[in-house]
Formats: sequence, C-alpha cells, structure tokens
Amino acid sequence: MSFQNPVFIPGPTNMPEALRRACDMPTLDHRSSLFADILQPARAGVQEIIRSDSAEIFIFPASGTGGWETAITNTLNPGDKVVAARNGMFSHRWIDMCQRHGLTVEVIDVTWGEGLPADRYGEILAADKAHEIKAVLATHNETATGVLSDIAALRKAMDAAGHPALLFVDGVSSIGSMPFEFDSWGVDVAVTGSQKGFMLPAGLAITAFSDKAKKAVETAGLPRCFFDVRDMAKTYANNGYPYTPAVGLLNGLKLSCEMLLSEGLDNVFARHARIADGVRAAVSAWGMELCAASPDLYSNSVSAIRTPDGFDSTKIVTHASEVYGVAFGVGLGDVAGKVFRIGHLGLLTDVMALSGIATAEMCMVDLGLPVTLGSGVAAAQEVYRSTAGAMALAAE
Amino acid sequence: MSFQNPVFIPGPTNMPEALRRACDMPTLDHRSSLFADILQPARAGVQEIIRSDSAEIFIFPASGTGGWETAITNTLNPGDKVVAARNGMFSHRWIDMCQRHGLTVEVIDVTWGEGLPADRYGEILAADKAHEIKAVLATHNETATGVLSDIAALRKAMDAAGHPALLFVDGVSSIGSMPFEFDSWGVDVAVTGSQKGFMLPAGLAITAFSDKAKKAVETAGLPRCFFDVRDMAKTYANNGYPYTPAVGLLNGLKLSCEMLLSEGLDNVFARHARIADGVRAAVSAWGMELCAASPDLYSNSVSAIRTPDGFDSTKIVTHASEVYGVAFGVGLGDVAGKVFRIGHLGLLTDVMALSGIATAEMCMVDLGLPVTLGSGVAAAQEVYRSTAGAMALAAE
Amino acid sequence: MSFQNPVFIPGPTNMPEALRRACDMPTLDHRSSLFADILQPARAGVQEIIRSDSAEIFIFPASGTGGWETAITNTLNPGDKVVAARNGMFSHRWIDMCQRHGLTVEVIDVTWGEGLPADRYGEILAADKAHEIKAVLATHNETATGVLSDIAALRKAMDAAGHPALLFVDGVSSIGSMPFEFDSWGVDVAVTGSQKGFMLPAGLAITAFSDKAKKAVETAGLPRCFFDVRDMAKTYANNGYPYTPAVGLLNGLKLSCEMLLSEGLDNVFARHARIADGVRAAVSAWGMELCAASPDLYSNSVSAIRTPDGFDSTKIVTHASEVYGVAFGVGLGDVAGKVFRIGHLGLLTDVMALSGIATAEMCMVDLGLPVTLGSGVAAAQEVYRSTAGAMALAAE
Amino acid sequence: MSFQNPVFIPGPTNMPEALRRACDMPTLDHRSSLFADILQPARAGVQEIIRSDSAEIFIFPASGTGGWETAITNTLNPGDKVVAARNGMFSHRWIDMCQRHGLTVEVIDVTWGEGLPADRYGEILAADKAHEIKAVLATHNETATGVLSDIAALRKAMDAAGHPALLFVDGVSSIGSMPFEFDSWGVDVAVTGSQKGFMLPAGLAITAFSDKAKKAVETAGLPRCFFDVRDMAKTYANNGYPYTPAVGLLNGLKLSCEMLLSEGLDNVFARHARIADGVRAAVSAWGMELCAASPDLYSNSVSAIRTPDGFDSTKIVTHASEVYGVAFGVGLGDVAGKVFRIGHLGLLTDVMALSGIATAEMCMVDLGLPVTLGSGVAAAQEVYRSTAGAMALAAE
Repeated sequence: MSFQNPVFIPGPTNMPEALRRACDMPTLDHRSSLFADILQPARAGVQEIIRSDSAEIFIFPASGTGGWETAITNTLNPGDKVVAARNGMFSHRWIDMCQRHGLTVEVIDVTWGEGLPADRYGEILAADKAHEIKAVLATHNETATGVLSDIAALRKAMDAAGHPALLFVDGVSSIGSMPFEFDSWGVDVAVTGSQKGFMLPAGLAITAFSDKAKKAVETAGLPRCFFDVRDMAKTYANNGYPYTPAVGLLNGLKLSCEMLLSEGLDNVFARHARIADGVRAAVSAWGMELCAASPDLYSNSVSAIRTPDGFDSTKIVTHASEVYGVAFGVGLGDVAGKVFRIGHLGLLTDVMALSGIATAEMCMVDLGLPVTLGSGVAAAQEVYRSTAGAMALAAE
Repeated sequence: MSFQNPVFIPGPTNMPEALRRACDMPTLDHRSSLFADILQPARAGVQEIIRSDSAEIFIFPASGTGGWETAITNTLNPGDKVVAARNGMFSHRWIDMCQRHGLTVEVIDVTWGEGLPADRYGEILAADKAHEIKAVLATHNETATGVLSDIAALRKAMDAAGHPALLFVDGVSSIGSMPFEFDSWGVDVAVTGSQKGFMLPAGLAITAFSDKAKKAVETAGLPRCFFDVRDMAKTYANNGYPYTPAVGLLNGLKLSCEMLLSEGLDNVFARHARIADGVRAAVSAWGMELCAASPDLYSNSVSAIRTPDGFDSTKIVTHASEVYGVAFGVGLGDVAGKVFRIGHLGLLTDVMALSGIATAEMCMVDLGLPVTLGSGVAAAQEVYRSTAGAMALAAE
Repeated sequence: MSFQNPVFIPGPTNMPEALRRACDMPTLDHRSSLFADILQPARAGVQEIIRSDSAEIFIFPASGTGGWETAITNTLNPGDKVVAARNGMFSHRWIDMCQRHGLTVEVIDVTWGEGLPADRYGEILAADKAHEIKAVLATHNETATGVLSDIAALRKAMDAAGHPALLFVDGVSSIGSMPFEFDSWGVDVAVTGSQKGFMLPAGLAITAFSDKAKKAVETAGLPRCFFDVRDMAKTYANNGYPYTPAVGLLNGLKLSCEMLLSEGLDNVFARHARIADGVRAAVSAWGMELCAASPDLYSNSVSAIRTPDGFDSTKIVTHASEVYGVAFGVGLGDVAGKVFRIGHLGLLTDVMALSGIATAEMCMVDLGLPVTLGSGVAAAQEVYRSTAGAMALAAE
Repeated sequence: MSFQNPVFIPGPTNMPEALRRACDMPTLDHRSSLFADILQPARAGVQEIIRSDSAEIFIFPASGTGGWETAITNTLNPGDKVVAARNGMFSHRWIDMCQRHGLTVEVIDVTWGEGLPADRYGEILAADKAHEIKAVLATHNETATGVLSDIAALRKAMDAAGHPALLFVDGVSSIGSMPFEFDSWGVDVAVTGSQKGFMLPAGLAITAFSDKAKKAVETAGLPRCFFDVRDMAKTYANNGYPYTPAVGLLNGLKLSCEMLLSEGLDNVFARHARIADGVRAAVSAWGMELCAASPDLYSNSVSAIRTPDGFDSTKIVTHASEVYGVAFGVGLGDVAGKVFRIGHLGLLTDVMALSGIATAEMCMVDLGLPVTLGSGVAAAQEVYRSTAGAMALAAE
C-alpha cells in the first residue's frame, strides 16, 4: 500500500492538506475562551451545510455509529416502535442497534440495490392509527450499495399518512457531497460523521436535532450519558463541552465547512456529480452494471459495481491493494463477493479519479474479466474533458 | 494565548511532535491488512503499560467519559448496586453517570482533598452479606484535587471483606504517568483516555477488561451498542473494527506506547515525580498548600494549589491566559474559586516546568497575593538541578 | 492548480511525506553535537548512492547551479581551458557559467536530442598535446531533452587520449534515479541537487570530489568563498559547518539516502525504468516520438515528447495547468514549442503515472491533436500490469 | 537535547508553527503562474520591512554568507579597495571573504564589544581624496558580541567626508528584530538571512540593492554566476527564477513578512526590546556584565554575557545542552571562553525567556559561579510583569 496513491474507499476520504493541518493543532485549553471560536463556527457551518435555519447541532467525539445512538437514545423510550427499511449493510446495522436498545423495529426488507420505498413507509404509517410508531429511520445514501434514496418523497408519504413520527435520517455518506435539505424535508434528527463529505479523519459524530426532536428529548427514557444531548446543550451555552472535546477535529470541521461554503454547495454537489459521471461512464464502457437498480438511485459519493456471476468481487479489492497499492471497497452483507465499490467523495479531482479507474481496469484484466484496457478510462476522459470548461466557468 | 508557550492544564497535555505526526497520517483503508499493524500493537502496548498479562484492551473513538460508560454498561444490569467514593469532580461525574443508567449508587462522601477511604469501602462491602453490590468504583487520581488514592489498599479491603464485586478504576490521569498495576491490584475494568499520560489529542477511550469482567459481559443487561465490547472483541479477532476507527489516533497510541516502554516505565514515573517535586517545592516556597491533604496523596500528574481565603483562585487562571498566554486549570465543584491547578504530566521538561512556575508567580504578584518573585522558581530550580544528574544516569 | 494532483515536472519531484517531515524539523543548534548525526550520515549516504568509496561529499545550501560553480571555482584558474558538449539547455547554462568565470570553453555543439559525443571529446583531447584543457564537462542526463549520455564511454575516450583533464559530471537529474558510477567512471567532480532523485525540496547543492579534484583545489585560483570546499572540509572535520547550514534539508537528505539504500539501488533504478517504460509506451501509442534520438539515449527520469510540426507544444503545458491542475514541463531553448516534458522521477507509482498520461491525452485531444483517448493509457497499463508482479518479487 | 525546550541561540530561531507549515508545502511548479504569487509578495514584504521604497530585493537559495558574496561580487572589481571595521567574528569573516575575492580591505580593528567607529570611518574616507575606496562595510548587529552599531552615524560620517563609496550593511541579526532604515540611512546593499528576524529555517540569502548599487552592477568585474543579480532581475521581471528556487522558504518568507507587518514593525521592535530588557535585568541581578561596552550598544536580538575571569564560558553552553537540553551560544574568536550568548530574537514570549534565564542560572550554580538561584528570574519577571499590560495595550 503506497500512501502516494489516492484511496477510493467510500470514506474515510482523501484529505486536503489544509484540513489535515487544521486537525493537527497544538494543545489548546478547551476551557479557555479560544474554544468558542472553534466550536461555534463548526456548529454553525454544519447547520448551513444541511440547509437548516434552526436545527441544533450536537457534535460528539465518536463515529457515525455514535450519531445513530445519539438519535435514538435521546428521543425514544424503551419498547418504543420505529419503522425502518433495510436496503444495505448500514441500514441493517442501524436496525440492529435499535433492537439492542430495546426498541421494536418494523423492518421493511428491500432488495439491496433498491431505494427506500416511500410508499411502503406510507402504508405502514397510515395503518398505525394509534401512533405507536415513534420514529421513521431512513438511510439517505446506502454506502454499501451506492443507492441514494428520496427523503423528500418519504416526508411526503409521512405527511400523507398524517403521522406524527419523528424522521431520523442517516446522512453519513451524503451530507457535504449531495443535496441534503434538513428543513424542507422536515428531518428531525440527521446524523453524519467527519470522515466523508467533510474530508476529515474519523472521530466526530455530527448530529442535528429539530425543535420537535428536542421536545422528545425531554421525555426520552432510554438511558444515555456520553451521548446525552442535554449535557451538550447546557455546556455549549457557555462555550464549553461536557467532557474533553476533540479540539483538533472540531477545528478541522470549522475549516471544512468554510471551504465547502466558500466553494458554494451547488458547486460542491456539481463537482461530485461530475466525478461520479466519469466513473459511471467507465463502468458502462466495461459492459458492467451498478448495484443501484436505476439511474435515479445513483449515488454521487460511491458506486457499487456488480461483477459477473461466479466471479468473487473481493478479489479485485485484494488485488488492487496488494499489486497496485490502491484501496477500493469490498461488497458487504447481501452483496459480499458480488460488487466492489469505488468511493468518489471528497476532494477527488478528475485526474485522481482517472487513476482509480485505470487501476480497476488493470485489476479486472489481471483477474481475467473481459474488460479492455483503456476503455473505461477513455469513457471517463470524455466525460471529464467535455465538462472541464463548464466546471471552470461555474467556479468563477 | 500563544501556542509558543507550553500548557499547564492536567490534560490534554503538551504533545511531542513525533506523536502529533503519528496521529496526522494520510488516509489508510482500515479494512486492509495494514490496519492490524496499528490496532494490535496499540492494544498490546496499553496492556503492558497497565502491567497486565491478560487484560483485554478495547479502544473506542470517544473520550474517557465514554470509557466509564463502557465499564458499566458492559458488565451491569439495570438496578444493580455499586459503591463509589466521591472526593472530587470526576468521581462525582462517574457516580452521576451510574445513576443516569439506572444503577443504585452507594456514595461515600469524602472531603475533597482526601483520598478514597479503603476502610469505608471495606465496611460497606463487609456489611453487604447478600452481595448485592456488583461493582466498586474508584478514581485512582482525582484530577480535580490532585489526589492519588491507594488502589492496592482498596483491593486489600475488598479481599478482607471477601466480597466478589468487580473493581472498576478510573486511571484517566494516572495511567502512563504513575504506577498502575492492573493484575496485582486485581482491577477488573480500567479506564483511561488518549490525552493524558499518552500525550495524544483527546479522542480515544481506552479500557481494559479482566477475565472476570468479560464474564460479566455475557450477562450484562444494560443496553449498549456503540460501546459494546462484544462487537469490539469479535472484530478485533479479524483485525477489524465494528465501525470506522480513528486510525490516526490509534497509530499515535501505538507510538506513544513504544516511546513510554522504550524509556522504561520506571523512568517515566520517576520523571513525573521529579517534575512534580519541583512544582511542590515552589508551592511550599510561596507559603501555600496543596489541596491534597497529605503527602502520601500527592499526585505526580497534577497539583491543585489552595489560594488564601477570600481570594478567587479563578482569577489566576484568567490572568495567566489573558496576560501571559499560559493555561492553568481552574478549581471545579467544591473547590471552585479555592484552588488553581498546575498540570505536570506528559513530556514536560524541567525547563518547561520552570516557565510555568515563573508565570504563576507573576500572576499571583500581579493579583496582589503575598508571593515573592523568583521564590518558587528558586525552590524548583534547586530540586531540578540536584536531581538532573541522577535522571541522566538513570536514563543511560 | 490542485495540490491533490501529482506533478509531472522533471524536478522538483513529488515528495514522500516522510521526507517532507524530515525536512520540517524544529530548530536544532547546529553547533551542538546533534548536528554530526545529521551531516555525516547524509554525506555517507550520498557517497554510497554515487557508488564511491573515497569521494569527499560537500553539500551547500544552494541549488544545483551552485554545485556547478563549486566544481569549477574550486579546481580551476582564470583563463583555464575546458571542453564541453552542448546538447540541451542545462549543458548550455553550465558552459555560460564557465565563460562568466573567465574560462575558455571549447564547445562541442550537438543537435538537441543527441547524446554527448564521446568520440568528439576524444579527438579534441587527443589533439591537446600541451594539456591545456584542464577539465571535461559532461551533462549526464540532459533534463531539457530527456537524453542520457554514456559517461563510461566518455571516460574511455579520455583514457584513450591519455589526457589528464578532470572529469566533471552534472548528475542533477540522474543521480538517485539511474545508475551513476563515480569511481568506476573516474569522475572527478559530480554535481546534483536535493530536488530530483532525492525527492526533497530544492535547496541543497550536492557535490562529490575525487582525490584528484581535491588536489586541484590546492592550486585553484578562481576566487570563491561561499562555495569554497576548503572551508567545508575544515569544518566537517569537527562536525561543524562554515556558516549556518540548512539543517532540515540535510536531515531530509539523510533519510532520503536511507530510503533509497534500503530499497536497494538496483530496485530504485528498475522502478524508474518501469515507470518510464509505461510513459514511452503511451507516447508510442499516440504515434509520437521522443526528443531523444535513439532508445539508448532514453532517460528514465524525464521524457521530452515531440509534438507535430506547426503545433506549439507549450499549449499542452498551459492547458494542463489551467484546465486540469497538472504540471508538465515545457520545451526550453532550441526545443521550445517543439516538445513537452513528462517528468517521471522520484517516488512516482504506476497509478500516479497513469493519471499523468491520461491528463496529457485529454489535453492533446482538447487542443486538436490526432490522439485517441485511452490509447496511451492502455499501452502504459499493459506495461505496468505485465511487470507489476516482477516488481513485487524483486522487492521481496 | 529535547525539542520540547525553546532554543536560545541567536538564530536559527524558534519557529512559529505557521511559518514551518508555510515552508513545508507540497511541490509547486515554479514555472507556473502560481510562483509569482509567492515570489513577488515575499520581495515586496522584505522591501517594506527594511523601510525602503525603491530597493530591489534579490533572494538566493543560500545563507547570509552568500548575501555578503552577492553584495561584493555584483558591485566591485578585482583589486578594489573597501573599508571595514572588525568588532566581532562576523565582521571578521566578511573581511576575510573580501580578501579571498581579491579586494583590498582597510581594516579598522576595534575592541570586541565596541561598536563601529563612525569617526574612524570618516577619517579614512576623508583622507581618501582619490576615492579609491569603493565600498564601506558595516555589520549592523555583531551577533558574536551582541553589539548594535549606529548606521545613521556612519552615513553621516560618509556624507561629511563627501565620499561616494557604496555602503554595504550586514543586517543578518538585526533586520526584522530592530529598526533598519534602508532609505533614510542611505544603505546601498543590505544583507540578511531567513533564519533570524524572519523566524524561518536557514536557506535564504536576502539582499537589497539601491539604485546606486544597481548602477555599480553594470561595471562590476568580479566573476559571479550563481549570485549574479542580473540573472535574478531578468527572470523576476517574468515572474521566474534563474534556476530552481527554494519555493517553500520563499512561501515562508511571504508569510513571515505578512505576520511582521500585520503586527506592526514598531510593535515587533518593542517586543524584542522588552524581551531583551528582561534578559539584561537578569544579567544585572547575577552581578555580571554584557560584552557590549555601553547601553547604547545593547542588541535586542542577542546578549553576550561576560563570565568571570578564569572561568571557561563554553562550559555553560555545554552543560546547558547536556544536562538541561537547552541551547545557548558560545563565545567566538576573541571572546571565545569569555562570554556565552543568549539569543532572544524571533517569536520568543516572556514565558519562554524566563525558562532560558532559569536554565542559565541553574547551569551557573551547577558550575560553581556565585549566582543566586531565582535572582535573575525575579529581575526579569519584574520587567515582564510591569510591561505586560503596556504590550497588550499596544497590540490592540
């Protein structure tokens, strides 16, 4: 594994040097007044990036998984019922977490590669006349399958059912890379991590709570302490923190938000779409298909690529790592051995993306797959060169 | 606040540049084989530093507070009874956490500045014929008061009472700075963080479980998921991690352990004792007293210094920060306004310590306290110069 | 220009992070005993890399140009005669420097793209019965044209002529990337810089003097002070330096030598040859030709690629920089506008090289050259994948 | 030697982390348009810091010694006569350099510890009716003795003599730390380095040429090439460089100038004076004297402290390094063994200075000198605390 090469896993991403340096700061006394200048802009930046005017941002020294736990333990009571669709490994894990915390989960099983079925959610909610369901869980971008679901449609289904359940959205691999509309989608708790769209090291669980979610905090009976947003809220009000914060990562988050907002969110999303388009053109040129069942589900942060039947897709990832020093993502769970994943989120340039495509190509040829060297690269080059000017113009 | 000056807070500590660099690493695919070379040596290093042959080390992307939560949620059941002494802010907080997780805490209240009363623990345990008490909680080094307690004595009291309770020890501000004997003290769960004796940024909760504690994991009914050691154990066995790990911090922990073990733990502890002796000599020369009630309780990682009655000790900390750009620790809880703290753990040299002492001196004179400039410095200099040779010899 | 992309200029190269960190060291007192542990291993490492047992290494805080000046001012007298071939911009500049220092240069003009004509050198030396020629200047690798010349053949020609002139070799873009045999080629002064094969920032002029060259130092009458090797020799003997050294760069040089020698020079050279082979395969696939006139002259550190008549090659470089954020080298002097250069020295992986090739391809298509997208990439991929295993085996 | 401690040598200085990071930049193509944004602001910044409207700034990848060579070789002819006072090791070395370049130096020998004798310069110039003297050399701040000379007085003496000689000033250890008035003093060539007032690593020779000096360039006959300002001038005009520049250091210089100018030069100089005042108060409290003969000569960048007769001052420096890991400066040349030096230039805080003073104190007591522990520290503390408020006010 050479650290000279980019990584093509769907997070942690390649990190801009400026962000690494912002994280790698000398020790700062987090009880001094300097801490406020890090904490509060980081929180404000996240709020702006998820497009909310009023969400309260709580940031924990943890991973995205800790963010899931924050969402449920701060709002629900033991035995509460929630509804969740399972369309990949990460939605599966969130469901498992709920069960381990004593919640009853109504699971909507969906073929991996499909999106969240807003209609099925709607039917279940409509049938729940007693409003026993307290929360709806939705994985915005299923990192395991490269499937982006339509949260606006889910909200519409909830509204159509006239159901008061809270809406929890896992935006771990979407926030900062693809549009996320906390306010207009009526999200109640959003969850993400530092190591995806924010291009930072792992280590921050980032959550956003709506007013409705904060009201639920008052009555939530699930035990919690480390992830208790009440302690966060109280200490934030005095520019403090309930325990020792990860100051460097927060400083990195502050700068990451500044960078994304200064580039302009629309430009950031267009940049991700363009890089993803190149990767998808390559996949097409190889005669292969994405795990995502239809173009409206294509994720701009990760592509899961189906390999031919009978071929173990994990071999591509192992081969890339051992022979070329390049990291791709393996298939997980239901699609283990059936897909490999190219992560393309964060500050990946077209030039870097081409090196990943070229590497995947070499691996597939090395392993006997019927792929023509240069074919995917050429298709991606065509995408990149035909859009390079437009990007430059947009950035002006 | 100038980043040129050392900090004198009791953690996060000043960080050796080598450790900062180990943490600030490029993105590494944590699902690749390279991760094992970081995770496993870090775990083995911690085990050696806490002097255990068999403890299993679980490391979470969290703070020390998360380590406390790991200890209790993985071993206890709702409603379980535990006993804990409260002799400072951090023992207080752990007690509060237990209560929030539905445990019944038998609290032994002790004057802040005193150590843990092994005899009182012993009496309570002896009286608990039904063995309803499932765990004994002990804060090895109370960071708020600079008090180091005798865990060996506590174990002796437990054994004398013939009580089977688990022994949980908070070693957050002792491990890596002062002797900690996991095996010979019969500790069942030890908890620490990355930002103290390991001299790393905050962001890792480091825990160690005895075989007895691991047995308790099987029957523990408190809900947990993010902090579930079962997921850690299962994934560690395959050199994996249950979610995205903080790879850089783990890499820093690996190097930190190498540095401490290569220096030799006895040398590390002697180094801390020597620096602390200088600080204490300065306090004496100022005509002031430590919060710690007697010399056997003096902590080598932090000194809490009592200021004269009627003087608000917080002013020293604010003044040092605003006028000299130096960070000291304020008094917390019961001793708020009554003590200020000089942290002296981690890789602090005698030369750096003198600059902290000199700064405290200027602050106190600036604020009208009856302290003679140079007096504390001279006392500390005498300690340092008379021991400098011995240190050099020991290091050979 | 994105710092995320590799550079493809023929030096300064992409820098391994370990080397950047070795250079970026805190201030060290260069008059303390610690300096010896940096200076002397760096000198010993250079000596080993140029394959010499006895050359004395002198390292100046300067660029390679300063190394040229060191060579001539320390060995020659005003008015002395030297002979030099001009086959590119850098050999041209060295000649110019000689003239500005009052030397008489017998210039052998050669078509740019050709190598140094050992036979012509031989004839001139043979004709110089009076031995008025004091030194022979040779540019081992002409960075401007990507031409590697045969220094062994030149030495043979000198010997055949029985001429006692000193042999000065510019190894700026060859040393550390391609075989350089100081002792067996009978080199008297070799010159290089930090920013090429050593993969460091610019800032060190590195020179090696044979015993014969050192003898010439004693009688050399050209004025010099900053570049006087006598001051260097005297202070080195006491582990000192005649003025303030660039300690960080020397520390980087020490580590760079360790890295190259630990990889094994043969492996280093094979690695460069393999990467260069891929680039050359791409050039061929594009239907283009190198500036270097024949395969025996091909350089493994840089390829100068001829563009079609009537096309201004500089446009490729400008376009790559502006549109794709990638740096290639322009044509210089006689070949300005006629070639563009792809630098491929230093720690460039095959994966990185492919991204450079892909970028060049996009630029050429963008600018209307008759190149097929993916064609060069495919040719290079074939080279890289067919040799990837062998490299791995060799590295074992 | 611990890298945790500050250094107290008179350069290279302690480096602000921001400057280290500015220097440690990824490879940038110095032939691209990005280079102009580094080179030109760095040059403009230097011009402003030396208080000149019209001086042309030439920056070489070299040390300050290279700057001396730049001054003389670009303006003088072989055999030219110059006049220079020798009052320390660095003025001595510049004289030696002149002689090695074939110049005739009229040396004014002065007791080390004295300043430059403007009157003696004046007499010599007045006596030189034929104007054979082409240049006057002056060392503004003699780093070896901690003596600051009065360049304005020297200019007045030159003017009084009506002599047209050029005025060359070595400002290596004054520029950026103490007032330097290029224009109003009528300096013709000023010389400095990156590792002193600019707080950067060594590696840049920074020179400034007046119009008059540039006129002399046209007729200067001393051979030069690496240090030829004509090549610099020509390439700068196109935002280029005559050979490979030290891009990172130039980037650091750009930021250093920004930092100094943003702080305000008067504030920078007052900061240096304050830190130096504290050191001098300590020296006084120790009952010792500076090498500098009178207060008007005291340097704010370095103090050379005379030790008692019969005591070898070098022992302090060795002891400090070996026992406390702290670097002071030894005595050089005439004052070797008689003085030790405390460097106090660059971004040294009062807190850091106190640690150096405390260390010197311990060393002197360890070595048997009649010094009272804490005495110097107390005197410096009094200076620092009584001025801390004023500094804060000035900085507002």
